[in-house]
Amino acid sequence: MLQLFSEHILSKLSFLKNARLVVAISGGIDSVVLAHLCKKLGFDFALAHCNFSLRGDESDADEEFVIKLGEDINVEVFTQRFNTEAYAKEHKRSTQMAARELRYDWFKDLAAQLDFDYVLTAHHADDNLETFLINFTRGTGLNGLTGIPMINDNIVRPLLPFSRETIENYAKESDIKWRDDSSNSSRKYLRNKLRHEVVPILKEINPQLLDSFESTLDNLNDTADIVEESLNAVAKRAIVDINENGITYKVSEFKKVNNPKAYLFEMFKEFGFTEWNDIVNLLDAETGKYVKSNSYRLIKYREFLLLTEFPKGNYATKQIKESTVISYGLFGSLSFKEVKQIGEANNSVLFADKEKLKYPLEIRPWKAGDYFHPFGMTGKKRVSKYLKDEKLTPIEKENTWVLLSDEKIVWIVGRRGDDRFKVTDKTENILQIKLDK
Amino acid sequence: MLQLFSEHILSKLSFLKNARLVVAISGGIDSVVLAHLCKKLGFDFALAHCNFSLRGDESDADEEFVIKLGEDINVEVFTQRFNTEAYAKEHKRSTQMAARELRYDWFKDLAAQLDFDYVLTAHHADDNLETFLINFTRGTGLNGLTGIPMINDNIVRPLLPFSRETIENYAKESDIKWRDDSSNSSRKYLRNKLRHEVVPILKEINPQLLDSFESTLDNLNDTADIVEESLNAVAKRAIVDINENGITYKVSEFKKVNNPKAYLFEMFKEFGFTEWNDIVNLLDAETGKYVKSNSYRLIKYREFLLLTEFPKGNYATKQIKESTVISYGLFGSLSFKEVKQIGEANNSVLFADKEKLKYPLEIRPWKAGDYFHPFGMTGKKRVSKYLKDEKLTPIEKENTWVLLSDEKIVWIVGRRGDDRFKVTDKTENILQIKLDK
Repeated sequence: MLQLFSEHILSKLSFLKNARLVVAISGGIDSVVLAHLCKKLGFDFALAHCNFSLRGDESDADEEFVIKLGEDINVEVFTQRFNTEAYAKEHKRSTQMAARELRYDWFKDLAAQLDFDYVLTAHHADDNLETFLINFTRGTGLNGLTGIPMINDNIVRPLLPFSRETIENYAKESDIKWRDDSSNSSRKYLRNKLRHEVVPILKEINPQLLDSFESTLDNLNDTADIVEESLNAVAKRAIVDINENGITYKVSEFKKVNNPKAYLFEMFKEFGFTEWNDIVNLLDAETGKYVKSNSYRLIKYREFLLLTEFPKGNYATKQIKESTVISYGLFGSLSFKEVKQIGEANNSVLFADKEKLKYPLEIRPWKAGDYFHPFGMTGKKRVSKYLKDEKLTPIEKENTWVLLSDEKIVWIVGRRGDDRFKVTDKTENILQIKLDK
Repeated sequence: MLQLFSEHILSKLSFLKNARLVVAISGGIDSVVLAHLCKKLGFDFALAHCNFSLRGDESDADEEFVIKLGEDINVEVFTQRFNTEAYAKEHKRSTQMAARELRYDWFKDLAAQLDFDYVLTAHHADDNLETFLINFTRGTGLNGLTGIPMINDNIVRPLLPFSRETIENYAKESDIKWRDDSSNSSRKYLRNKLRHEVVPILKEINPQLLDSFESTLDNLNDTADIVEESLNAVAKRAIVDINENGITYKVSEFKKVNNPKAYLFEMFKEFGFTEWNDIVNLLDAETGKYVKSNSYRLIKYREFLLLTEFPKGNYATKQIKESTVISYGLFGSLSFKEVKQIGEANNSVLFADKEKLKYPLEIRPWKAGDYFHPFGMTGKKRVSKYLKDEKLTPIEKENTWVLLSDEKIVWIVGRRGDDRFKVTDKTENILQIKLDK
C-alpha cells in the first residue's frame, strides 16, 4: 500500500510534499495508518486528537494512545478535550453533529494559529460508499450522492481512493497497532449495518464495486458542475437587487426554463423551504402571496420574488432611555440630539417637542391596530392604511418601525412624523431624531 | 389497493380512462394484478402476451394461462411467439436485451396497427429500486439513477408508485391467480440477490425506503432536466453545421464552460466514446488529431470539432458495369449518359471519352498512393497532395471518392477530372457522368 499511496500522492496531491500538515487522528485504524504513511513519506506533519469525552476512560485511553504514538514516531501531538454533550445541548445539535462541528472548528483554529497548510483526515473509499448509501436510504438529491470530496478548502483526504481492506491489510502487514472504537451510537449502528450486511453483498455482485463507485462519483460530480454553472447563470439573470432587506428575483427568468421547480428548488433549498409546489405557484400568484420557511420568506411582489429573512417584523419592543444613539432591528440606528431650531424637512429626520415626550420612549415594528396622527393633518389614520397608500412593498412594510411615547406613535421611522409631537411656537426644547442610513 | 390505484390514476393518469389500452402481460403476479385492476376500473383494454420460447413448456403454459385469463375477464388477448435466441444471435444481443427489443417493437406495432393509445406495463416501485441498485453496482451516472419513467412515449407504468408487497397483498386478498417465473437468468440472479438480500436491510434501516426513494428520484429527475436544458443551450451555441458528413462544433464554446469534460461527456456519450480525457485534450490539439469510438470519430479541425461516422472511408471498391445510375457509400450516386456534346464545366459533371474507358469501371474512396493526371495539366499528381492543396477538411477528405478505369483514376468525384480520359477532337462517344447531390 505504501507504494500505491505514494503514487497517488505524487499524481494527485503532490502539493502535500512541501506543506505543513496536521493529521486528524482518533486512534482508530484509518487515522493511525494515515499517520504512519505520512511518516514513511517524510511529510512535515503533526497529530491532532480530539477527546470528545463521550466514552469516559476509553476516550482518555485513546488520547494517551495518540500521545504515545506521537512519541514513538517522533511527531508533535496536539490534543483538545471537549464537553461534547454540553455543546450539543446548548447548540441543539445531535451528539454526532456537535462532535463534527467541534472537531472541524478546532482543526481550523489549529491550522490558522500554528500556520499549518492542510488538515488531513483518514476517510477512505468504504466510508464514502457508506455515506452514499446512508444518504440514499434517507432520501436525497444529487448533492447527497456526490461523495466526500478529496480536497475541500484546507481539508484533504488522502486515503479516499483506498478500501478499508487495503488499509487493514497494510496495518496488519506493517504490525501497526491501533485502538478500536467500541461506541455504538445510532449513526454507527446504521453504518455498521450497511458495512456488514449490505456492502458485502454489493461487492459479491460486483467485486470491482469501489472502482465502479469511484467512476459513478466522478460522473455525478461532473453533472453537479453542469448544474451549478446553470444555476449561477439563471441566478445572474434573475437577481435584480441584493440589499440588507433581501434578494429580489425576476419571475420571468424562472418562467423561461423548462422545469421551474428544479431551479427554484436548487436556488432556495439552502433557505430551509419545504413547500416546493407552493413556491412554483408563487410565480403566478398575486402580489403579497408568500411561502415561508423557519427563517425566510419568499414573497410575490408584482413581477418579482422577494427573498427576505423571516420574521424580521417580530422584534421585541426596545426601550429608549434618554440616550444619544440607539440601534434596533438588524440594521436600524437612531441618534438623538437637542437642537436650537428645526432644520430642513427630510424623511430621515424628525424634529419633536421634547417636553411632549415621555421617557422611556419605545421602538418596535409597526403592528396591525396601530394608528397615528399624520403630521400636518388633524385626524388620525391607521398605519396599515398609510403604508398601503404609500404603496410600500411587502418587504418595506415588514421593515417599517414606529417610535412611541407612552404608547403613542411619535414617528413612523423614516417616513412620517406624528402631529401630536410636532414642534410649535410653544416648544422650548427641540429634539432632533435622525435615522442613520 | 384498488382505491389507492384508482386515486393514483385519477390524479396522475386520468388520460387512461378514455383511451384504448394494451396491457403487456407475462402471466406473473404484477401484470396479472394490473389486468385485474384495469378490469375493475372499467378500462377499455386488451392483453398482449409475448412468448419468448425461452423456457419450453413453461413458456407455452404461460401463454395458455394468459389466454384463459382473457376469457375469464372477457378481454381480448393478443399473443406473439418469438425465437428470442435466434434474434439475439443474429443481432448480437444478450437474451435479455433481445427479449426487450422484441417486446417493445411488437407492442409498438400492435398499438399502431390496432389503434391503441397506450401500452401499459406492470413495473412497480421495487422494480425501480432494484434497477437503480443494479445500475449503481455496475457504475453509472445521473441517467442510470433517475429510475424508470411513469410515462415514456406511449408506454405507461401505472403501478410504479406501488410496492411489491402492496401488489402481493392485493393479489392474495382478491384471490387472484398468477404464474411464477422459474427462470434464473443472470439478470434475474442479480435482481433476486438485491431483492432478497440487500433491499430488506435497507427497508429495515428505513421502513419508508420506497417513499424516500420516490422523492430521491423526483429530485434527480429535476436535476436531469436542468442538465438537459443546459446541454441543449451549449449545443445550440456550439453547433455551427449539421450535414450528411457529420456535425461541426465550435471549440470555443466548450472552453467557456467551467468543466468542459462534463459537457463533452454528456454531449458525445451516445456515440460510444470512452476516452474522455483524450477528448478534452482535443480542444487544444492540432488540426487532424482525433479520438474514435467503434462507430464515430471526433476530429479537431482548426477551431472546430467534427463528429463524423467512422470509418466512412473504408467502403469496399464497387464495380460499375455499363449502368445508368449507381450509388456508392452512404449518400453518393452517379448517373451515366451518352451525350452529343460537352456541356458547361462544373464540379458535379464529368465528360469523358467513352472509348478510353475500360469496363467495368470501379468506384472507391481514395487511398494513400493514389495519383492522377489533373485535367488541363501534363504531369501527374498524388491525390493526397491535391486534397491538401485544395484545403479540404478531414471530413471532406474522408468522403472523397475516385472513379477508376483499369485502375487509373478517371475522376476525383465531384472535384477534378483526369486529363487522360478527357474529350478531344478525336472523341466519338461522349459519356456524361454526373454526381447527384
